[in-house]
Amino acid sequence: MPRSGCPIAVTLDIIGDRWTLLILRDLFMGKTRYGEFLESPEGITTNILAERLKRLTENGIVDKRPYQDRPARYEYVLTKKGRALHPVLKQVVIWAEKYVPDVWEAPDSFMKLS
Amino acid sequence: MPRSGCPIAVTLDIIGDRWTLLILRDLFMGKTRYGEFLESPEGITTNILAERLKRLTENGIVDKRPYQDRPARYEYVLTKKGRALHPVLKQVVIWAEKYVPDVWEAPDSFMKLS
Repeated sequence: MPRSGCPIAVTLDIIGDRWTLLILRDLFMGKTRYGEFLESPEGITTNILAERLKRLTENGIVDKRPYQDRPARYEYVLTKKGRALHPVLKQVVIWAEKYVPDVWEAPDSFMKLS
Repeated sequence: MPRSGCPIAVTLDIIGDRWTLLILRDLFMGKTRYGEFLESPEGITTNILAERLKRLTENGIVDKRPYQDRPARYEYVLTKKGRALHPVLKQVVIWAEKYVPDVWEAPDSFMKLS
């Protein structure tokens, strides 16, 4: 997609992908490690997870930090810029709980983050 | 992607696609007709536009209404369920204007819709 300067289009270039938004959800729920993201019920694959975490890191949404040498292991945590995306996900939850049947209730701990 | 009951995952099944979200943006800006959506600067193709409008209609986000016979022509307008998505897009704009350089300022008329 050719870029435009529209703030919505530009943001979608960064996070406009369902897997990316589910990874953000997991980050807001406190997940930081590969194995934790892979456990989520939507069944993300390792390839997609690796590619999306790389993109989120390059865009300053998450910080990649080593937590172990030999073998090297990394964890991923939201930056300030990343945490500022919470209101977007929160509005998604508010909409779904009102308009989509049979969705799970989001945890209070999630809804209170912004 | 296998569905889960997570409100975010379920919503992304419906609107979690960059083109869908740009069509929603255009609908909120008052566009209703094929040719109008095609004019947007991101350059959506007719195939993608047709498929996404069909999906939005099937999910009750937009109403498809005839505005002309011979040849039959349709316009697309947001339902109540669709209009309720505005706060999601608005939070995207707020985030982009704060964290992404060089984005266009969203029109007041857009920001005031919710």
